[in-house]
Amino acid sequence: METEHAANNGIVRKDGGKVGHGGLREVVLRVLALVLTLVAAILLGVDKQTKIVSVTISPGLPPLNVPATAKFNYLSAFVYFVVANSIASVIAAISLVVALACKGGSVFTTILIDLMMVALLFSSIGGTGAVGLLGYKGNSHLMWNKVCNVYGKFCHQVMAATALSLLGGIVYVLLVLLSASKLKRVS
Amino acid sequence: METEHAANNGIVRKDGGKVGHGGLREVVLRVLALVLTLVAAILLGVDKQTKIVSVTISPGLPPLNVPATAKFNYLSAFVYFVVANSIASVIAAISLVVALACKGGSVFTTILIDLMMVALLFSSIGGTGAVGLLGYKGNSHLMWNKVCNVYGKFCHQVMAATALSLLGGIVYVLLVLLSASKLKRVS
Repeated sequence: METEHAANNGIVRKDGGKVGHGGLREVVLRVLALVLTLVAAILLGVDKQTKIVSVTISPGLPPLNVPATAKFNYLSAFVYFVVANSIASVIAAISLVVALACKGGSVFTTILIDLMMVALLFSSIGGTGAVGLLGYKGNSHLMWNKVCNVYGKFCHQVMAATALSLLGGIVYVLLVLLSASKLKRVS
Repeated sequence: METEHAANNGIVRKDGGKVGHGGLREVVLRVLALVLTLVAAILLGVDKQTKIVSVTISPGLPPLNVPATAKFNYLSAFVYFVVANSIASVIAAISLVVALACKGGSVFTTILIDLMMVALLFSSIGGTGAVGLLGYKGNSHLMWNKVCNVYGKFCHQVMAATALSLLGGIVYVLLVLLSASKLKRVS
């Protein structure tokens, strides 16, 4: 097996530094991370649904029909999700360029940044998942009514965005493992 | 700098494999991860507060005073948090024993397991944080009332558990970085 010392960061790599610590697998994974987190951010960022709901102002008066809108920015967890996934997609784009352009960048720095993205994405997935579940099922103990029976399309879009972001998070996990596996093994 | 090949997994390490890929720093970090996630799980797992609240059944009748209890298992996000932190503390305990007992275990497996814990913990922190924030501030758009003005002690304990778990998650991030930094660098 051809081996070579990557002079600029001092880490021995088994791929011989031919394509940086890029390689086809890394490029594919970074493109995937970029697309998944970007689509997740857009999907929740543009999520909006308006419904006509009946509001009873006084028991003596007939109920009023008023339009009520569900938007992502009404919930902190959803705002955090959009910001987190936007950051993760920008980082994926930058690291894709770095992987393609630079030969033998620092594997440790790559692991560090990808690891930050894992933590960021999974915290946003947890937050959106928890709030989404409350919207879907409600909570009788807290008297928080479910809202997904009214805003069905809105909730489905939240669910789709969360699923895509989860896949994006898993891709970042694979990127950390890929970097770790590229460090020199001797047989 | 003394170097040596770790024969059983083929990864070159700069610590010469003298204390496995353990070392004092790893042992300290694993003990920290164990304590932080265990205390976080217990803190939320035993969290319970009973309050007497006034309930108006009919406008013509005087309000009834009934006891109402807040418990962690009333919310899926809190149950997930307790389970996730329990798993993370068990894994910390097992990996501590492995780090102390085995010399030169697989660095890649260690990174893989620690990385799973990062994803697990941060998703649970995100979920509990999002629900905790809703309990603290409520949401007028969804007509979800805040509950922390009633269950103050309960909410403080949720906040403390989340903070401890966040520290635990950061310790797991450091463990991944520690493992990555232990792979051989040549100067």
